Amino acid sequence: MRCLYLAGACGSIGTQTLDIVRENPSEFKVIGMSVGRNKELAVRLIEEFHPEIVCFRENYLYELSYTPKIVVGDAGLLELASYSKYEDEVFVNALVGMSGLMPTISAIKAHKTIALANKETLVAGGDIVKEYVKKYNVALVPIDSEHSAILQCLQGESHKEIKRLIITASGGSFRNKTRDELKGVTKEAALKHPNWSMGAKITIDSATMMNKGFEVIEAHHLFDVPYEQIDTILHPQSIVHSMVEYKDGTIKAELGVSDMHTPISYALRYPHHNVQESKQLDLFGLKLDFMELSKDRFPCLGYAYYAASRGGIYPAVLNAANEAAVKLFLNDKIEFLEIERIIEKEIKDDKYMEIPYTLENVVSVSLSLMKEILSRYGVD
Amino acid sequence: MRCLYLAGACGSIGTQTLDIVRENPSEFKVIGMSVGRNKELAVRLIEEFHPEIVCFRENYLYELSYTPKIVVGDAGLLELASYSKYEDEVFVNALVGMSGLMPTISAIKAHKTIALANKETLVAGGDIVKEYVKKYNVALVPIDSEHSAILQCLQGESHKEIKRLIITASGGSFRNKTRDELKGVTKEAALKHPNWSMGAKITIDSATMMNKGFEVIEAHHLFDVPYEQIDTILHPQSIVHSMVEYKDGTIKAELGVSDMHTPISYALRYPHHNVQESKQLDLFGLKLDFMELSKDRFPCLGYAYYAASRGGIYPAVLNAANEAAVKLFLNDKIEFLEIERIIEKEIKDDKYMEIPYTLENVVSVSLSLMKEILSRYGVD
Repeated sequence: MRCLYLAGACGSIGTQTLDIVRENPSEFKVIGMSVGRNKELAVRLIEEFHPEIVCFRENYLYELSYTPKIVVGDAGLLELASYSKYEDEVFVNALVGMSGLMPTISAIKAHKTIALANKETLVAGGDIVKEYVKKYNVALVPIDSEHSAILQCLQGESHKEIKRLIITASGGSFRNKTRDELKGVTKEAALKHPNWSMGAKITIDSATMMNKGFEVIEAHHLFDVPYEQIDTILHPQSIVHSMVEYKDGTIKAELGVSDMHTPISYALRYPHHNVQESKQLDLFGLKLDFMELSKDRFPCLGYAYYAASRGGIYPAVLNAANEAAVKLFLNDKIEFLEIERIIEKEIKDDKYMEIPYTLENVVSVSLSLMKEILSRYGVD
Repeated sequence: MRCLYLAGACGSIGTQTLDIVRENPSEFKVIGMSVGRNKELAVRLIEEFHPEIVCFRENYLYELSYTPKIVVGDAGLLELASYSKYEDEVFVNALVGMSGLMPTISAIKAHKTIALANKETLVAGGDIVKEYVKKYNVALVPIDSEHSAILQCLQGESHKEIKRLIITASGGSFRNKTRDELKGVTKEAALKHPNWSMGAKITIDSATMMNKGFEVIEAHHLFDVPYEQIDTILHPQSIVHSMVEYKDGTIKAELGVSDMHTPISYALRYPHHNVQESKQLDLFGLKLDFMELSKDRFPCLGYAYYAASRGGIYPAVLNAANEAAVKLFLNDKIEFLEIERIIEKEIKDDKYMEIPYTLENVVSVSLSLMKEILSRYGVD
């Protein structure tokens, strides 16, 4: 029995994780859960899974039929991550944003396996997180379909034989628009992802291609592959979830339907696949296109490589600037293209060069930068 | 240093194997070699690689600059396979036809790793060969691009999680012809494979789709997967060399250019890829089609499943009937469609039911059936 601590239970990855637990009660049990502002959903999930410990975002009066241990806010997330009573424990990090970083560290220190959907953990804190992973000897397994595909394509293979990782990108909701056509696009249009059903933040990140940039940085940390050996490719159908090319010219690819249940299930069972039969890809009549993913068309992708090349605290700055900008866009404070401009300004600023790359600085610089950007537009 | 014994050095797989040895003299050395009737090529290869032992097809006067151990004919092949002086020895079986079976057994008994291109070894003698592989604890690694792809897609995976193997088929030289249009097709047209450069026998087997039927039987033995879980699919581009579908819906595929050097190199280095950079697949503008491979259009594929379902000596009968029929076709004795009819008649005959499945019967029944079929048309 794997004991799960699910941070971000009410989100897209969270609810899909709970679908898997619901269908496999003999394999998984939810011991802890953090829930968001959707009170009705939160109460329903808590009552269904009866976790021992629940983290609420804010102190709020919930009527529950039993009395779990209650913790609150960012400090509560750390308590949830540290709580440990069982043999085989997995911390499923389905949090969105910078608030996901510190709980990952706490869960590693509690010797939990990490099933990671939170991008910020590795984008902002990659090298530091990896040190903890090594020190505490825990497994860090990606949930993202792209990284799940790469992980699978690397099974049983030797690191030194890799030529490059090839991360596929659907192109997001605006893939057919020119840069000119991006002026004045609406939030509603940006939130319509053509292939995947995901949360709002990641759907906007897909439209700007920042998401793919984050995935490049995550792949670098997850698989210990230098940036020169990580490429991205436009693949509108999202059928091939990603590929690994070996030096002998061999390409291994992972294909499947666009359903996050599959990579979540793989992460929970790694290195095993679910043995219950599930949705099958119809190979007949399949159309698979691969095209160049242009950094001119999608500057955020280039920003990610650039921030990574500057190193130190820059990937955290990239992430924080993006997180604030997306929040502004989702709150109708800025236009779509302004997201890019906010990010570009920060990562090109030399002032972050002097800041030592420590966990404390990653967190404090990120939080103050987000606050500063939001305050420019009167948001807090 | 891996020490190679190359049976069938002058053929398509043989010469490509020697290309790899030539380019990697610090990794591989040719200790033994069998050569065919092309005297000029045989002498050139012997002089270049200076094997310790050479097997000639017939007793023939060759002028050589040194004196290797000389052996001759089928008995010579067994001597070549048994010859053993080094630590890390690989028997590369690139023979065509039934004559490849017994040398494989001898090489296994000599504790050599088997790199297998000879189809007949597993088609005719599968269960028996596997017993020897188990008893002598040697590795049996396929050279075929399809099986190489499946082997790679199975790396690091659990057998019980496999849903099915999906073997791709180019469709061969007549893939665009209807059954009516197959009447009276010429040998020359049949020998023009659209994607792969291969020997004559296998090119005809591709046109009849018998080759794919053989691959199904080989896959069954190589990967211990029941026939119900082995499918074939038409994939005209031959870019995806084969796939494995897992029960969770995940498909792992191996892609690459159509160049046999890659799977040969992988077999010689298994489980490692060559780390020298080689021909790269251009993903941009790639077209990948997958269609149903019809057993009505390609009856030989159905014959293979049928012979396999009858079990015992039937796959050997299937192979022998095909080998004789292809020889007749290549000698302009029969029309293309007659190949199918010759095979069908034998595998539907109940008389083979009574013959126990032993190595001796596999060999003797195969040889006598081939002789009998050839004699019908005055060929010996």
